[in-house]
Amino acid sequence: MSHLIETGKQARSASYFLASVSAPEKNKVLLTVARNLREHSQTILDNNQADLEKARQEGLSGPLIDRLLLNSDRIESMARGLEEISNLEDPVGEVLGMKKRPNGLMIGKKRVPLGVIGIIYESRPNVTVDVSGLCLKSGNAVILRGGKEAIRSNTALVNIIRMGLKENDFPEDAVQLIEDTSRECALELMKLNAYLDVLIPRGGSGLIRSVVENSTVPVIETGVGNCHIYVDQYADPDKALSITINAKTQRPGVCNAAETLLVHASIANEFIPLVGEQLRLKKVEIRGDLFVRKLLPYAVAASEEDWYKEFLDLILAVKVVGSDREAIEHIRKYGSGHSECIVTENCTVAANFLDQVNSAAVYVNASTRFTDGYEFGLGAEIGISTQKLHARGPMGLKELTTTKYIIYGNGQIRI
Amino acid sequence: MSHLIETGKQARSASYFLASVSAPEKNKVLLTVARNLREHSQTILDNNQADLEKARQEGLSGPLIDRLLLNSDRIESMARGLEEISNLEDPVGEVLGMKKRPNGLMIGKKRVPLGVIGIIYESRPNVTVDVSGLCLKSGNAVILRGGKEAIRSNTALVNIIRMGLKENDFPEDAVQLIEDTSRECALELMKLNAYLDVLIPRGGSGLIRSVVENSTVPVIETGVGNCHIYVDQYADPDKALSITINAKTQRPGVCNAAETLLVHASIANEFIPLVGEQLRLKKVEIRGDLFVRKLLPYAVAASEEDWYKEFLDLILAVKVVGSDREAIEHIRKYGSGHSECIVTENCTVAANFLDQVNSAAVYVNASTRFTDGYEFGLGAEIGISTQKLHARGPMGLKELTTTKYIIYGNGQIRI
Repeated sequence: MSHLIETGKQARSASYFLASVSAPEKNKVLLTVARNLREHSQTILDNNQADLEKARQEGLSGPLIDRLLLNSDRIESMARGLEEISNLEDPVGEVLGMKKRPNGLMIGKKRVPLGVIGIIYESRPNVTVDVSGLCLKSGNAVILRGGKEAIRSNTALVNIIRMGLKENDFPEDAVQLIEDTSRECALELMKLNAYLDVLIPRGGSGLIRSVVENSTVPVIETGVGNCHIYVDQYADPDKALSITINAKTQRPGVCNAAETLLVHASIANEFIPLVGEQLRLKKVEIRGDLFVRKLLPYAVAASEEDWYKEFLDLILAVKVVGSDREAIEHIRKYGSGHSECIVTENCTVAANFLDQVNSAAVYVNASTRFTDGYEFGLGAEIGISTQKLHARGPMGLKELTTTKYIIYGNGQIRI
Repeated sequence: MSHLIETGKQARSASYFLASVSAPEKNKVLLTVARNLREHSQTILDNNQADLEKARQEGLSGPLIDRLLLNSDRIESMARGLEEISNLEDPVGEVLGMKKRPNGLMIGKKRVPLGVIGIIYESRPNVTVDVSGLCLKSGNAVILRGGKEAIRSNTALVNIIRMGLKENDFPEDAVQLIEDTSRECALELMKLNAYLDVLIPRGGSGLIRSVVENSTVPVIETGVGNCHIYVDQYADPDKALSITINAKTQRPGVCNAAETLLVHASIANEFIPLVGEQLRLKKVEIRGDLFVRKLLPYAVAASEEDWYKEFLDLILAVKVVGSDREAIEHIRKYGSGHSECIVTENCTVAANFLDQVNSAAVYVNASTRFTDGYEFGLGAEIGISTQKLHARGPMGLKELTTTKYIIYGNGQIRI
C-alpha cells in the first residue's frame, strides 16, 4: 500500500505541473515520444517477444496472443497516434458562460484537467501509449496498471514515454506504470481516493464489473455493448440489409457491433429471408424466435439469455416484434445502453425511437459501428462510456477534463 | 432486498414517463403540490410534532431538533420553492453541437434526464420536497431515503407529493420514500445498480463517507467545505476585512463558510491585529500559528489537525505565509476543494491564484459564502459537488441531466 501512496503523491505533484503547461509544450513531448518509439522499436520488440514467449508457454489462446503482439506496423501506428493527438485542440483553459450577476460578481466556468487518472487494462500494449498521449494532452497525470502478460512490453513503452517527458523538462511521474500486477495491488489502486480523481477500466466485462464493484474512486464504466438494429415496417429494405450486415459482420469482436436484430412483423416475411441469406453467406449463426425459425430453417432457437448477450462473434439474435413499442421495450429490457439503430423512412417513427430509446448513441438509418471517437469527430478516444454520469458515448480529450467556477469580485459579501 | 428491487423497478418505469412529458405538464404538478402543501399543512405539522416528541424523548440535541422542526413559515417556504422551480427553464430536450460529418452523418447530443436518482439524507424534512421538485422538473424519478428521526414528517410530505402526481395523471412512483430506515436498507440502496443511475448523499461528513465507501452506484459527493481566504500582500485591507468577517461569521454552520485565513507576511503586522479585533467582537475563536499568536495574545495555538478542519462554528484557523506559493500549497494540502478566495488588487497574482488553486469555486475579492445555486444564478440547487466528475460546485437542474448522442443517417455503413 505504501508504495501506491508514493505513486499517488508523485502523480498528484506532476499533475500540478501538467495543469499549467501550454499546448505547444505538451505537443513537443508527444512528438518526442513518437520519435523515440520509432528509434527504440527494437527494444520494444525484444521485450514484447519475451512477453509473447511467456504467454505461449502458459498456453494463452490465439486471440490473446494477437492482442499482445507488437510489430513494426503496430509501433508505427502508436507513434502516428501520438502525432494525431498533438494536432488536436487543447481543451484546457477554455472559459464557459462567464456572466455578470446582479451584485456585480462575474461568474464563469473554466475547463481544467481532471488531475490524476488511473487506467486498469488488459493485454493490448498499445493502450499504454494511446492513453498516456491522451492524458498528457489533456493535462492529466496517469497511473497505468496493465495486465501481467504484457508487463515487459508495457515497461519498455513507459520507459520511452518517460524519456520523452524528461527530455522536455516535464516531470517523469506524469506517466507511471504499476509494476506489481497482482490483484491485491489493483484493489489498492481502486481505493486510492486521496490521489486518484477517476479510474477507467478498459477491457472485458469481468474486469469492468470488478472495478465497478470494488472501487471507491469514481469510475467511468466503459464498454459492454449489446447493440440492436430495429428494422421498422417503413424501412427501406436495401438500407436495412446493408446496415444489418455491416453492423454484425464488419468487425464482430467490438463493442459497437450489433448483437440483436429486431424486425417489425409486417415486413418480416419479406425481410427475414433476405437478410438470413446474406448472413448465412457471411457465416453468421442466427438465433431466432419461433417466427424467425419458421422462415429460416437453419436458424437455431434463441434462449432468454441470448437476448442479453454480447456475442462478440458471428452470432446474431433475431426477433420479430409486433410494434415499435415492443421493439423499444425489448431494447430497454435487454440492452446495455450502448448503441441502437432504427431503420425507417418514417420521420415520426424515427423521432419516437430517438426519444424513447435512452442509450449512449441512438441512430436513424446508419450502422452502430460508427460509435467511435474518430468517427464522431473527437479525434481520438479513451473509451466509450456506457454510464450516464460525466461522459456518455465516445470519450475524447474534453471528457478527460472538468470545470471549476471562477468568480471575479470587487469586495462583495453576502448579506 | 426484494422490496428495494420492486421500488427500483417502479422508479425505472416512472422515469420513462417523466422523460417524455412536457415542461408545462411537469410545472402543473409542481404547482399542485405547492397548493396541497399549504392545504394540508396541519397534517404535516401533526406528523412533524410526533417526530419532534420522539426526538426529544431520545434526547436529540437542540440544533438537531431545530433541523427537524417544521412550522407554517417553513411549509410556506417549501411551497414557494416548488413555485420557483416551476419558473425555471426545463433543461431536457436541448440538442447540442449537431454537426455534419464528412460521410453525411448528422451527429449531435441531446440533453435527457439521468433516469432514477437516489438521495440519502439526514434530518431536515424540507429536503424531501426540494429534491422531489428538482428531480421532477428535470424529468427524473427519485427514491428518497431520509433519516429515521424524520420518518413521519417525510411520509406525510411524500404522500402530499404523490397526491399531486396522481391528480395530474403522473405515475405516483415518480417519487418514492423508503420507509425502512435501517442501515442495512441504506446499504442495499447503495448497491441497486440495475435501477439507480446516481446516488447523492446530503448530510454530514460521516454520511457522505459511508456512501462513497459503500456505494457501487455512481455517487456525486457533496458538501465538505474547508474554505480558505488568502489575504495577499497587495490586498485592499477594507475588502480583506469585510470578506473575512462575512465568510467566517455570516453563517458559520454551512459548507461555504471560511475555516482558514492565510495572510501574506508583508502585511501581517497591520492586517492581523485589525481582523483579530473584529473577529473577537464577533466572538470568533482564533487558532493561530506562532506569528499570529505574537500579534494576538488571545489566539490559541493551531494544531496540525486544525488546518484540515471544517469547524462549522465560530472558530477560524489563521496562518501567516511567506509567499503566494506557500498559500497555494497550503490550500492544496489542507483544503477540501470547495471554495477559496484571494484578496488582492494585483491582477497577475489574482490570475495565478485562479490558475493554481483547483477547487470547485475560486474567488478573487469576494466572500466564499456565494458558492450556492441561487447566488450563481442556477435558480435552485440539489447540493454542492466537491468531486470532479460530472458536476462541480453548485448543482442545478442541468446537473441532473445527461446527454445521449443522436445520429441521423441515410444508410451509412462503416468501411
